[in-house]
Amino acid sequence: MQANVLVGGLIACSVAILSLWQQRRRADTKLVEAKRQLDAERRNRASERTGRIRAEKKLRERESSKEESSDSNVPEIYPLQPIGHLQSCFTKRSGTPRQPLLVPAARARLLLRQDIPAGCLEGLEQYSHVWVIFVFHCNTDLQRLWSPDHASDGLKAKVQVPRLNGGRMGVLATRSPHRPSPIGLSVAEVIEVKGRSITLGGADIVDGSPILDIKPYVPFCDSVSQASAPSWVSDEASDDPIALKDVQIRDDMLARLEACWAASGPGGAIRHALYKHPEDWVGLVRQVLRLDIRSLHQRKYSVTLHGVTISYDILPERTVLVRGAYVG
Amino acid sequence: MQANVLVGGLIACSVAILSLWQQRRRADTKLVEAKRQLDAERRNRASERTGRIRAEKKLRERESSKEESSDSNVPEIYPLQPIGHLQSCFTKRSGTPRQPLLVPAARARLLLRQDIPAGCLEGLEQYSHVWVIFVFHCNTDLQRLWSPDHASDGLKAKVQVPRLNGGRMGVLATRSPHRPSPIGLSVAEVIEVKGRSITLGGADIVDGSPILDIKPYVPFCDSVSQASAPSWVSDEASDDPIALKDVQIRDDMLARLEACWAASGPGGAIRHALYKHPEDWVGLVRQVLRLDIRSLHQRKYSVTLHGVTISYDILPERTVLVRGAYVG
Repeated sequence: MQANVLVGGLIACSVAILSLWQQRRRADTKLVEAKRQLDAERRNRASERTGRIRAEKKLRERESSKEESSDSNVPEIYPLQPIGHLQSCFTKRSGTPRQPLLVPAARARLLLRQDIPAGCLEGLEQYSHVWVIFVFHCNTDLQRLWSPDHASDGLKAKVQVPRLNGGRMGVLATRSPHRPSPIGLSVAEVIEVKGRSITLGGADIVDGSPILDIKPYVPFCDSVSQASAPSWVSDEASDDPIALKDVQIRDDMLARLEACWAASGPGGAIRHALYKHPEDWVGLVRQVLRLDIRSLHQRKYSVTLHGVTISYDILPERTVLVRGAYVG
Repeated sequence: MQANVLVGGLIACSVAILSLWQQRRRADTKLVEAKRQLDAERRNRASERTGRIRAEKKLRERESSKEESSDSNVPEIYPLQPIGHLQSCFTKRSGTPRQPLLVPAARARLLLRQDIPAGCLEGLEQYSHVWVIFVFHCNTDLQRLWSPDHASDGLKAKVQVPRLNGGRMGVLATRSPHRPSPIGLSVAEVIEVKGRSITLGGADIVDGSPILDIKPYVPFCDSVSQASAPSWVSDEASDDPIALKDVQIRDDMLARLEACWAASGPGGAIRHALYKHPEDWVGLVRQVLRLDIRSLHQRKYSVTLHGVTISYDILPERTVLVRGAYVG
């Protein structure tokens, strides 16, 4: 009887042990799983953290760079927008006269920006001449403009003056394009004012120049009778227009030039708009070539007018002979 | 004997059960702890994630706004930096002559920016006159410059022309300051070039004007003899300089003006630098008042020269009587 009780107890215990052992096994498995999840979670959090820090760092950099560009050390800048661009016969810098009105047959057209009303030009036709204020956009050092805080980097204080055969002057004592602010000033003849466009004569301005402003030429304040300049400048005045004696265009070349005038392609539309007859166009060619517009660095003698490239030779006795012409 | 074995078994079992139960308890505790850590880790990761996403979003916004400001729809802008600022006798806009060289005694000094070398001015003293290209910085609508994409907002196509008693002209057919690009052009006499400073005579430019460029006046291309303007402009030329017959300064006022010249305070330094003797200074006052520089909107008759405010009356027979003068 007593033995039976004990055996029963033993069996019950064994059962208990078995179930407890199983419970412990299960708990261990759950623990291992939980640890795995924890590790995974830690890895993910770490990568989120790196991402957040990277993004926030970049953000700080942007902000600080913004502050710099708006602090008081930044130079005073006037962001000027062109009122339009000039369509000029002088397609390239080389061949463009060094002074205005030397080529009366030269034609250029300014079309005002879309948002500037035509009324702005009303009355301008009552003036014979206008001032044209423009940007020397062909300057290779123009990007200086875009880093104004280094505006004077590489600015040459003195420039060579052609007529001083190699002599140098302070850049602000010349009309050189390579000046602290690359702004040009030229007088031009008013040929026609029509809607939002104005046709100019004798402008010594390169095609595509951004025009900042035009002003009527007011003789009583702009024409200073008592004004004087150094003798070498006056010499330039008298010499340049008669630099060459004659321009010879053989008949075949004449036909060639007139064919170029009639051609479409680069500069065609504006060429036909500004020169009604081929003779007017040939007249322009004669006037330009007579000026001896060869630059010091120029290798081959050629000039491009309204997209037509004209090559020429300089004969003895300072005579020009047209060698060829082609569009483009 | 058999009973003892069974009892021994029972005891062993109880011990096993106890240890197993304890092991299970420990496992449970670890599991609970692991779950706690896992939850904490999940919360942290979530917040890291929110932080990363917020930062990256802002970053994208910055980037995109940067792209916008460099896309092709943005207007063509030339950020021009003044070469210096003009110290002029005309402290305020009102009282400033409407044309240059009408007040020969007027003095102004331009000091070049620190980073522009003095050599830039070398040779300028050989010219009698220079062009001054400046910003109309007193324009109340100047902030248009700073929102170039709305440059033509509020731009008046026509402006009233004084001599046309109320008549209006296209703004680009006038020299009005309120133009699409608020750039001024004036000729001035070269008085002295010294180091990085140039002293000008007869400039009709307001004190503090930002100077964009100066160029030598080259008579053979800037002085256009055949240039013509509407008759009302020529009238202005002949009338304005003799607008008033005489300027009367009683002795007490003469002493007062000379005391103002000697005084320090606003404009003092430049006043003493540009006018060696009190007579030169009084000469300036006479020339300015003779011009009848009253603007249409002007209430009281007064003008401020180099920081000295001079009040005056217009007597019958077009004579000016100086009423008072004070510094500031």
